Amino acid sequence: MTASNIYVIIVAGGSGKRMSSSLPKQFLSVNGTPIIVHTINKFDKALEDFNLIVVMNPEWIGYWDELAHKFDVRTHTVVEGGAERFFSVKNALNSISDSSSDAVVLIHDAVRPLVDEETIRNVVNQSGEKGCSIPVVPVSQSLREKSGDGFSRPVDRNNFIVVQTPQGFNLAKIKDAYNLGYKKIFTDDATVFEAAGNELFYTEGKSFNLKITYPEDILLAGCLLGE
Amino acid sequence: MTASNIYVIIVAGGSGKRMSSSLPKQFLSVNGTPIIVHTINKFDKALEDFNLIVVMNPEWIGYWDELAHKFDVRTHTVVEGGAERFFSVKNALNSISDSSSDAVVLIHDAVRPLVDEETIRNVVNQSGEKGCSIPVVPVSQSLREKSGDGFSRPVDRNNFIVVQTPQGFNLAKIKDAYNLGYKKIFTDDATVFEAAGNELFYTEGKSFNLKITYPEDILLAGCLLGE
Repeated sequence: MTASNIYVIIVAGGSGKRMSSSLPKQFLSVNGTPIIVHTINKFDKALEDFNLIVVMNPEWIGYWDELAHKFDVRTHTVVEGGAERFFSVKNALNSISDSSSDAVVLIHDAVRPLVDEETIRNVVNQSGEKGCSIPVVPVSQSLREKSGDGFSRPVDRNNFIVVQTPQGFNLAKIKDAYNLGYKKIFTDDATVFEAAGNELFYTEGKSFNLKITYPEDILLAGCLLGE
Repeated sequence: MTASNIYVIIVAGGSGKRMSSSLPKQFLSVNGTPIIVHTINKFDKALEDFNLIVVMNPEWIGYWDELAHKFDVRTHTVVEGGAERFFSVKNALNSISDSSSDAVVLIHDAVRPLVDEETIRNVVNQSGEKGCSIPVVPVSQSLREKSGDGFSRPVDRNNFIVVQTPQGFNLAKIKDAYNLGYKKIFTDDATVFEAAGNELFYTEGKSFNLKITYPEDILLAGCLLGE
């Protein structure tokens, strides 16, 4: 695979509803650098070259342009996000015109700055070979399933896996999958890919590849990115 | 509640099968101090006084005694662990002879050194008032449930909660629950307590209160405990 046909989509569609901050969480500063810049830097270190697409809520694109300039982010395409993650990713995929049959696209959450270089490279390689690559980790904590009446029941954690990003796909196949239309169960790209009849292939993720969701996650990220 | 009727059981029964290390993970050193000592220090800081019980695999009790002396761990009782976590906790509970109706016991994993003082105090208070207190956090990552044939299906993460420790209980009630006998579904103390007909009460946990399970978790712990 040549560098020219690796695409990386960074999904930063969120407007920060779950954080007690008016700034969307991908822009929060960790050790002086915005989370999304930490995230993009990881791909810069892991891959020799790639084409970067950033999907962003339209009202934050101006802010991002300034930030990208200030932090010297590599040349990239900015695509407008949609109402749901599905539509954001679909817009980003449609912005890529590459008809080669072996192009690979990695789709990654802007708020996962702790992703490691080894995982990124594994996902690129496995997607090239198998058509997709989904990083997963076991569930190491006890889980309970809510039962609707305010109660919950214990479930066997060994029956579950945690699905992370970056998820990698053959570009043509994931574009086809996204063209089949939206369903509510689509919470990640693997689900969309699978619903189109494709088999999923997994790679080992890392427990520290957290999605920054709650304010206390910032503590963790700051600590690990400071190393 | 007076300090004399708060009990803290630290469960360190494991022998480290999942870590690539022959030393059980509760003994691994983080910033020069064993994980279990970090854990106990958190309770020392959070509570004015309490009675400490450490449950330990019999073959590691001698090692622990030396470590506790070296790191000046507060006076405590050491109880032999059993073949399953259930029997370890049961042994620890049976070692406590306190017939007061308002005694409270907190049961905590030795390998959760990142627990915060606020959570510990909340659990003590809610257990005193309600009879139990279980710290939980939402699931922030995508989950899939394995389907047995090598495949898996996406599940709605909003239907699940992650259960942490310390879990707090009215001492008499949790002793009664443990006397009803072992079932395979008992992966935590809340499950045992509930199976005996008690209602569960929850408190907000913290996302960073991780259970140290895999080698890369040590990185996280080292970083956060270094602050």
